Amino acid sequence: MGKNLTKRSDDYSKWYNELVIKADLAENSGVRGCMVIKPYGFAIWEKMQAGLDRMFKETGHENAYFPLFIPKSYLSKEASHVEGFAKECAVVTHYRLKNAEDGSGIVVDPEARLEEELIVRPTSETIIWDTYRKWIQSYRDLPLLINQWANVVRWEMRTRLFLRTAEFLWQEGHTAHETENEAIKEAEKIMHLYAEFVEEHMAVPVIKGIKTESERFAGAIETYCIEALMQDGKALQAGTSHFLGQNFAKAFDVKFATRDGKQEHVWATSWGVSTRLMGALVMTHSDDNGLVLPPKLAPIQVVIVPIYKGIEQLEAISEKVDPLVKELRNKGISVKFDNRDTHKPGFKFNEYELKGVPVRLAIGQRDMENGTYEVARRDTLEKETVPMDEVISKIEFLLEDIQKNIYQKALEFRTAHITKVDSYDEFKTVLEEKGGFVLAHWDGTLETEDRIKEETKATIRCIPIDAEAEVGNCMVTGKPSSKRVLFAKAY
Amino acid sequence: MGKNLTKRSDDYSKWYNELVIKADLAENSGVRGCMVIKPYGFAIWEKMQAGLDRMFKETGHENAYFPLFIPKSYLSKEASHVEGFAKECAVVTHYRLKNAEDGSGIVVDPEARLEEELIVRPTSETIIWDTYRKWIQSYRDLPLLINQWANVVRWEMRTRLFLRTAEFLWQEGHTAHETENEAIKEAEKIMHLYAEFVEEHMAVPVIKGIKTESERFAGAIETYCIEALMQDGKALQAGTSHFLGQNFAKAFDVKFATRDGKQEHVWATSWGVSTRLMGALVMTHSDDNGLVLPPKLAPIQVVIVPIYKGIEQLEAISEKVDPLVKELRNKGISVKFDNRDTHKPGFKFNEYELKGVPVRLAIGQRDMENGTYEVARRDTLEKETVPMDEVISKIEFLLEDIQKNIYQKALEFRTAHITKVDSYDEFKTVLEEKGGFVLAHWDGTLETEDRIKEETKATIRCIPIDAEAEVGNCMVTGKPSSKRVLFAKAY
Ligand SMILES: [Zn+2]
Ligand SMILES: [Zn+2]
Repeated sequence: MGKNLTKRSDDYSKWYNELVIKADLAENSGVRGCMVIKPYGFAIWEKMQAGLDRMFKETGHENAYFPLFIPKSYLSKEASHVEGFAKECAVVTHYRLKNAEDGSGIVVDPEARLEEELIVRPTSETIIWDTYRKWIQSYRDLPLLINQWANVVRWEMRTRLFLRTAEFLWQEGHTAHETENEAIKEAEKIMHLYAEFVEEHMAVPVIKGIKTESERFAGAIETYCIEALMQDGKALQAGTSHFLGQNFAKAFDVKFATRDGKQEHVWATSWGVSTRLMGALVMTHSDDNGLVLPPKLAPIQVVIVPIYKGIEQLEAISEKVDPLVKELRNKGISVKFDNRDTHKPGFKFNEYELKGVPVRLAIGQRDMENGTYEVARRDTLEKETVPMDEVISKIEFLLEDIQKNIYQKALEFRTAHITKVDSYDEFKTVLEEKGGFVLAHWDGTLETEDRIKEETKATIRCIPIDAEAEVGNCMVTGKPSSKRVLFAKAY
Repeated sequence: MGKNLTKRSDDYSKWYNELVIKADLAENSGVRGCMVIKPYGFAIWEKMQAGLDRMFKETGHENAYFPLFIPKSYLSKEASHVEGFAKECAVVTHYRLKNAEDGSGIVVDPEARLEEELIVRPTSETIIWDTYRKWIQSYRDLPLLINQWANVVRWEMRTRLFLRTAEFLWQEGHTAHETENEAIKEAEKIMHLYAEFVEEHMAVPVIKGIKTESERFAGAIETYCIEALMQDGKALQAGTSHFLGQNFAKAFDVKFATRDGKQEHVWATSWGVSTRLMGALVMTHSDDNGLVLPPKLAPIQVVIVPIYKGIEQLEAISEKVDPLVKELRNKGISVKFDNRDTHKPGFKFNEYELKGVPVRLAIGQRDMENGTYEVARRDTLEKETVPMDEVISKIEFLLEDIQKNIYQKALEFRTAHITKVDSYDEFKTVLEEKGGFVLAHWDGTLETEDRIKEETKATIRCIPIDAEAEVGNCMVTGKPSSKRVLFAKAY
């Protein structure tokens, strides 16, 4: 197809990296581990943001903004939190540069050293709970349901575009509640909200569950998650929602007057999804020809390519196309008429296939004579000839059908790649030869979990919330187990 | 009114600080110079963002995202730029913390020192032009019209909520063009776009002009700006748009193949507005009772307060109000029915006055009997009794009328506070006794500009683009001048 894209079957990882760059989603920057999100990639992210933001607001959340910097001492206040986040962060130590005395450029001014170092936020629990202390006095101030869209920094040694970058964009929700039960309900509600967004907008099926203790967020009592399966058989955690108990309220001394006049610590949750979702989107649907985008997130839903010789033919085609473009836009459909004279139709076909535009119309001389368009759908690459007066309803049908079809395809792939195993040997064989999720019995100990991870690189992705009770024995130790948990190698 | 707000006439600066905090717009955080933008304030900022973003997109711009960090060496590449920005920036020198050996907490790990320090972006020209080198090869890649919504950091010593903070939110446009003329046209277009936004959405009148050399952006050939006037007679720069010439293209070696096959450096612009606009909004319209918000930016446009005794009266009122709320929402009007039982009507009236809700409806027993609402408008504080079947058209009228009225009021204030003077003595008297903008002749030299600034604290806000040619003499040196320039003390 002239795209020079590595095939998935040859090297999945290389295919992914090439695709992200060639489809103009993102690229590496001059700053180690930090990416540039290009306009086409950012337009997809904006649609994700808009969808999520609407869902957050419909469930009573408000947006706010908290500082980028966190005083070093704040991080230490919650013991397990600092263990989880202190290791990989960007530290601001000075607030001024000056000209080097030898004229060699600019240097850090040693006199401008901060009394206390500032950490570039890896997540904002500490600075936010320091603020909530001032906002919460009484049960009347609760619940406090706040979300923030922000950039965060975690100093990762090995980075990959979208999947793992030193700086990434995300949203982080931080809520405060009167009771333990209400906070748990909130954390669960957000898990379901994330699942709904990822399945309905991104067309990516997910499994909802809770994390084991070793995979929990640093500072959480319980971590809820949604897990997706990529085409290479590896899992990807698409979102997490944490019940934090009273840990942060205690660390930052946030108490409230209860309905019966007592002073109690507040109950908390936090939750987030990030630009990592872009990686999940690319890896779930795309093929050897390029991106496949769900219509709900595609920046361009329909592209129209004219096939013509000379300005007169183009003008005649434009007279047909212009009203169609207008009508589609009135219906809220994002459409591009690519009448650039600098590129051939074949080049354009390739480009829009690479960029995952869901529906492509072409119109040439024969179409003009017959009153038709050639209509191609990106997911199956099928083409058909459609009479002009039926083209709008065809497009509306296709946009819905592609959204459903790629979800269905991903769901079938996942269903085919969830394997129940009853022995550790079988477990290893499935991981090695088939990949995907593996459902197996586990004795519930950290020791066994660690051993499995060390020996197979597979981790417990979650204990699915809809796991059926099933008496069994741990595949490694033979100890009793009451339900299967979900293993996989993961991103 | 029970708001305990300092009066503007007593202490304008104190009034502003109190109002920003009491109206729940923003507050200081535990990090020196960094603010927390509270949900109510952030909701206003989101409406500003949405309005601007739509205008950027309608004029062909796309959003993207570039790294938070800038390698120190990048800053040095454009000589005047580094002079302007190196002095006040947050410097990341390390990428890890560790537990202190004496168990006293966490400390910076001296072994995790960066080879090259990273600067938290004070503005992104350098990292973006380093990227554009890869994106631009030919005239076919131009124009490149990109905007970014981001946080930036400038280490200010004296900070004030919204007006001057170490971290602030903004948008920064960065465009690349084939010709000098096209880049100048872009910079001018954005100045007009900003003026349109600030006048039509924020209801704040502005004067468009160009900056003198000493007030120009570091690295610019020409800086266009819009200047607003606050109620205390001080000016506030509301937005700037820079024609950068080929300075950054040369510094970062960004060349393109021209239409006739030559290699030339690209022409650039950059432009931005920030959360500082929130300060302008507050200071232009608000009064001693609190915020006055333009309906186009008000998070709550209409609030309805029930006045009742007992649950039965409230239920009867709700039966009347619920369908009204629904109908207003269908019309896209943001409405809140405040039926909280925990607060008295008088408290609520005060609260919504303080928060600048444009239209307030109250409904009590007499209204129920008469089939009326009491309707109050925030800008003039006028109240009237309106029959229920006329209340929607009344609200629609008021939302438009308040938007116009507060603009008109601000315009009249500004008109009354632009004074033409012909002598330096008169200039000083006006600045001291009346304040506002002063139009005077100036000889065009940096020396005179500096002297005026030193002696009066007034700066040249701009050379207005619609300044009439008028032969005159510099008020300080008597040297010839061809038009008046706009002076003021400024934020
Ligand atoms: Zn398979
Ligand atoms: Zn006055």
